[in-house]
Amino acid sequence: MHKSASGSTLGPGGLDLTQAFFKPIANAAPPSTTKQHTKISVIGVGNVGMAIAQTILTQDLTDELVLVDTNADKLRGEMLDLQHAAAFLPRTKIHSSTDSSVTAGSDLCIVTAGARQIPGESRLNLLHRNLSLFRAIIPPLVRHSPDTTLLIVSNPVDILTYVAWKLSGFPSNRVIGSGTNLDSSRFRFLIADHLDVNAQDVQAYIVGEHGDSSVALWSSISVGGVPVLSFLDKQQIPYEKETLENIHKSVVDSAYEVISLKGYTSWAIGYSVANLARSILRDQRKIHPVSVLAKGFYGIDGEVFLSLPAQLGRGGILGVTNVHLNLEETQRLVDSAKTILEVQTQLGI
Amino acid sequence: MHKSASGSTLGPGGLDLTQAFFKPIANAAPPSTTKQHTKISVIGVGNVGMAIAQTILTQDLTDELVLVDTNADKLRGEMLDLQHAAAFLPRTKIHSSTDSSVTAGSDLCIVTAGARQIPGESRLNLLHRNLSLFRAIIPPLVRHSPDTTLLIVSNPVDILTYVAWKLSGFPSNRVIGSGTNLDSSRFRFLIADHLDVNAQDVQAYIVGEHGDSSVALWSSISVGGVPVLSFLDKQQIPYEKETLENIHKSVVDSAYEVISLKGYTSWAIGYSVANLARSILRDQRKIHPVSVLAKGFYGIDGEVFLSLPAQLGRGGILGVTNVHLNLEETQRLVDSAKTILEVQTQLGI
Amino acid sequence: MHKSASGSTLGPGGLDLTQAFFKPIANAAPPSTTKQHTKISVIGVGNVGMAIAQTILTQDLTDELVLVDTNADKLRGEMLDLQHAAAFLPRTKIHSSTDSSVTAGSDLCIVTAGARQIPGESRLNLLHRNLSLFRAIIPPLVRHSPDTTLLIVSNPVDILTYVAWKLSGFPSNRVIGSGTNLDSSRFRFLIADHLDVNAQDVQAYIVGEHGDSSVALWSSISVGGVPVLSFLDKQQIPYEKETLENIHKSVVDSAYEVISLKGYTSWAIGYSVANLARSILRDQRKIHPVSVLAKGFYGIDGEVFLSLPAQLGRGGILGVTNVHLNLEETQRLVDSAKTILEVQTQLGI
Amino acid sequence: MHKSASGSTLGPGGLDLTQAFFKPIANAAPPSTTKQHTKISVIGVGNVGMAIAQTILTQDLTDELVLVDTNADKLRGEMLDLQHAAAFLPRTKIHSSTDSSVTAGSDLCIVTAGARQIPGESRLNLLHRNLSLFRAIIPPLVRHSPDTTLLIVSNPVDILTYVAWKLSGFPSNRVIGSGTNLDSSRFRFLIADHLDVNAQDVQAYIVGEHGDSSVALWSSISVGGVPVLSFLDKQQIPYEKETLENIHKSVVDSAYEVISLKGYTSWAIGYSVANLARSILRDQRKIHPVSVLAKGFYGIDGEVFLSLPAQLGRGGILGVTNVHLNLEETQRLVDSAKTILEVQTQLGI
Repeated sequence: MHKSASGSTLGPGGLDLTQAFFKPIANAAPPSTTKQHTKISVIGVGNVGMAIAQTILTQDLTDELVLVDTNADKLRGEMLDLQHAAAFLPRTKIHSSTDSSVTAGSDLCIVTAGARQIPGESRLNLLHRNLSLFRAIIPPLVRHSPDTTLLIVSNPVDILTYVAWKLSGFPSNRVIGSGTNLDSSRFRFLIADHLDVNAQDVQAYIVGEHGDSSVALWSSISVGGVPVLSFLDKQQIPYEKETLENIHKSVVDSAYEVISLKGYTSWAIGYSVANLARSILRDQRKIHPVSVLAKGFYGIDGEVFLSLPAQLGRGGILGVTNVHLNLEETQRLVDSAKTILEVQTQLGI
Repeated sequence: MHKSASGSTLGPGGLDLTQAFFKPIANAAPPSTTKQHTKISVIGVGNVGMAIAQTILTQDLTDELVLVDTNADKLRGEMLDLQHAAAFLPRTKIHSSTDSSVTAGSDLCIVTAGARQIPGESRLNLLHRNLSLFRAIIPPLVRHSPDTTLLIVSNPVDILTYVAWKLSGFPSNRVIGSGTNLDSSRFRFLIADHLDVNAQDVQAYIVGEHGDSSVALWSSISVGGVPVLSFLDKQQIPYEKETLENIHKSVVDSAYEVISLKGYTSWAIGYSVANLARSILRDQRKIHPVSVLAKGFYGIDGEVFLSLPAQLGRGGILGVTNVHLNLEETQRLVDSAKTILEVQTQLGI
Repeated sequence: MHKSASGSTLGPGGLDLTQAFFKPIANAAPPSTTKQHTKISVIGVGNVGMAIAQTILTQDLTDELVLVDTNADKLRGEMLDLQHAAAFLPRTKIHSSTDSSVTAGSDLCIVTAGARQIPGESRLNLLHRNLSLFRAIIPPLVRHSPDTTLLIVSNPVDILTYVAWKLSGFPSNRVIGSGTNLDSSRFRFLIADHLDVNAQDVQAYIVGEHGDSSVALWSSISVGGVPVLSFLDKQQIPYEKETLENIHKSVVDSAYEVISLKGYTSWAIGYSVANLARSILRDQRKIHPVSVLAKGFYGIDGEVFLSLPAQLGRGGILGVTNVHLNLEETQRLVDSAKTILEVQTQLGI
Repeated sequence: MHKSASGSTLGPGGLDLTQAFFKPIANAAPPSTTKQHTKISVIGVGNVGMAIAQTILTQDLTDELVLVDTNADKLRGEMLDLQHAAAFLPRTKIHSSTDSSVTAGSDLCIVTAGARQIPGESRLNLLHRNLSLFRAIIPPLVRHSPDTTLLIVSNPVDILTYVAWKLSGFPSNRVIGSGTNLDSSRFRFLIADHLDVNAQDVQAYIVGEHGDSSVALWSSISVGGVPVLSFLDKQQIPYEKETLENIHKSVVDSAYEVISLKGYTSWAIGYSVANLARSILRDQRKIHPVSVLAKGFYGIDGEVFLSLPAQLGRGGILGVTNVHLNLEETQRLVDSAKTILEVQTQLGI
């Protein structure tokens, strides 16, 4: 009898409606089941994981969507809630399991699971707990999908992307952190909102460490193809460095602001990561600021992951755009790298 | 100075970058601001309201999306979280306010706000509290958008749609309850999952009261255009009424199941309501089972709202499909109508 | 130096801008180039082939789109015209060549090439010329893409799909004719237009031979899930068989009408075939009336291709829906099969 | 009896299936028919007009699509061919007529009609014939849709946009020429193809007169937000002005190349104009290089239309981006303006 995804059966044992309803044609061969099949797994079904899963589903990016979490009830509830929308969406097979073997053969594994800070806990202690978590999560994912790309969303994203890279043994192009892709979107929104233009017409990057020490690339901001700073210079419009710093500060603060207001962030990170997933799985070769192995760029010589504008396609990271940084920007990147390296040393990985 | 949606300002008072960046052309006239502008308001930013708002945003259904709630912090947090995704979406103006005047000129108002049952509270008492809530919500909405269509999602949806109709003074075609549109999607998913077909190829309705007493229209089920019951008859495949009832029971139970597992439902109702919004605003003239004024159908003679297959377009409800019900199905509809009428009498509205 | 798709080079030999612009990251592995890559080839760039190619491109169905034709100028012109739209579309690699080796590794080959009837030429003579054409086209396609699915659009589609099947040596599930998928859409449009409903809410099939002898399945017509004929019966609304026949006649005539008015058909067949391509490549498991090996269905015992409602997915034809035909409909199918078999015998294939 | 769009009737006079199939609900009011209804008219159903119409249809931009042409047969054939695809598309009402009153109430009128050059005919004589054609087309369009926006595609687009502006009496923001939007897409494709990046990541404009004297804005080219020329400078990568000129030459030549190869251009101009239609009707406020009244920009003082990067929204042209041109670029713009003004003087309009 046909085994349905939800485990339900519609009829008594003797009735196989499917066999009655469809008849095979003569001379048919069984289809190859794996060919061209696209599969995405999302690890962790909290607010972030589910916003990502739902946006991926809406955007029709995959044939199969798999959810994994340790909370079996929550997991099954989320799976059913997505499945119930089947009539409104292109067909996607949705599975879930607490056992990571369900992820076998994934093209992309998106890791959103992470420990939450306990009041009074040190940042390093939290990291140790997340390291333990990743030791439990990453090796089975890699074993079940040796050719997958890992997309890490859990925070602190730069260090945990490094951890995932070390634990996976993967080439560096197949381990990516969501990094400052979302920070850059917030940056573009603030500029677009101020100018009353479409945010998609704004090119602007925030790079470096995801968080307080991120670096805004002022010289690369353009609106509709017009570089903004050189425009201001040519028009002899004065502006103060403080003004620019305030915009960057707004971006850095905005994550904290959303968390303090609604308790967590979900929608924007969901769209941001689904956007990365599209560039990777549909081989779009678009440039996104994401966390990559930064060794060798801008004088960084340790094995550290930081966000740089990288081209994404089916092979994961295809290359890093050779964007010009001024001395101050370079120095801040190098300083971030050092801080992260020290933490990694303390972690002992 | 340009006033941005987020209330932030990017520079000191003397710098108006927008005016420098764009110059008006000669002989231009100011654009008409209201012409063809589409505006949707979502009242209530809980899990259901936000899943609806986010799906509407993804599907590019509106020029302006407004969120209203009494919880100012949560409201602003949700608005910012959607705005931060601007770089990944077509341009939509997103606003929010605790003051419903922000909804002025809405084409569609989607009401998801509702009181939650207090342990030990009677169903009637809960209804009285929701009646009070609707007395606070509906009249201002109607005053600010006299031509809007009201789409009620709050539960119990059939009675609250009636309440909204009475409070609004609107013609009946502009007051719609989300009703059994989602139940029908769950029904279609279960059948599709069993037959391993695309749920969009399954035509199947659940009508009547949203909830335990809903009515599954067995005779109208078809898969890929093949009526299933007459197919079974012609193929002489036996089936038992009990089997069919079990499927219906699964649908009825599935809402409870999701709530017991994850605490609430969100994704499927989000897609379901966004689907209704699309049919209404894009004048799709598609047929959906939604809660409509059922007076005069199937012998119902009171002013009661129940789900029937209705054609939706820009005018709201365009008509009700004259689907055949057998005697038992008709009786169950009439019984539901009576029960609802009694409750409405007790409510005193 | 980077070899661009259009064969153009932007700079002198010494300047490799790509290498300067992107830098590889440390520890990267070369991406697997074939994994998950989707490729569609369209053979024949006449009005039909190009409407199909353009609609596939718009709908973002494939990573790579290949055009093949014997007219090198027309072919390059069409390729460039599609490539020039790159800024408005998701990234798709577009190639073309008069040499079919460019199709290597295609997931789907859509054959639209066909000889045109010479005034005074007999139908059989035309068929012989098309047989010669297919002898030149099909074997190389199969050699370059042994796992591909063949989707035949050239007319007479049923016989040419049989020819393609024989020439390919493929299992029958991987050789599909576009058949009456378009006729059925025209049927659904006429019904929807009359009832002022959305054509997507109309379920209605035309099956059998694509052309004058096609069979309309009246009993399977439903609108919004309501079976129309049984609805009319229950409402005691009289209708005459002649009325129904007139609708079918309108469908059959509409292809001739469009051809007589504008000289050819293009848009509707373009959407129709792109729709089939989506169901196949995205494994949608939707049911479409397409030309399949009909041996064994409804008493047909020869190797003949006719349109029946078939479920399409990544394996091609997954099965045929066991739709009920009445005696007259069955007889017409069987008669069509006989006529086609005779022609095939005359063709000597 | 229901009057169907195609003019066909499905049954005898006594059978009104629609009335039987749908029943009105109690207390309903008739819907307002004009509210929020979006209507686009395409004037001229040649290859360009139809590629535009079909792309607009695919992208679900409008409720109503109207085709107008003087060739009644071709016109009806094209309308039917689009209508027959109804089952594969969101619902759009498609009409056609040789009488322009069918365009009444259009939000956007796209004019593609134009006389073709007769061998031996002078450019000025051709222009005189097109002027006569526009005298016949524009005034009725304006009379039937006084609030519409005119989007001119016919060539020579800059002069004919001026002609349409004068004939319409419209404010300048509601008369737009498709201008160099397509040239810029070709420019972006060539750069993207060379660098193997996504063309949507390339920002690059061609402005000025559509045709041989267009101006490529080298300084504004950026890839993934990185300004290319300053990147080359900083990386000390030498390039020659000749190289850049060759790219521009390729763009200018590509229109001629496509026409010489396939006889006309269609697909890219179809996507390009549908892209403009989206920015206008969905109020996207995106920046596109289109032909606008250029008086007052860069020292141009006559009433001449030339392509400049302009922000498009529901009001048509919202403003022109104040992009920096160097002296040579400015001079070329001014020279183009002079040439066009002289021709306009000769035309006597």
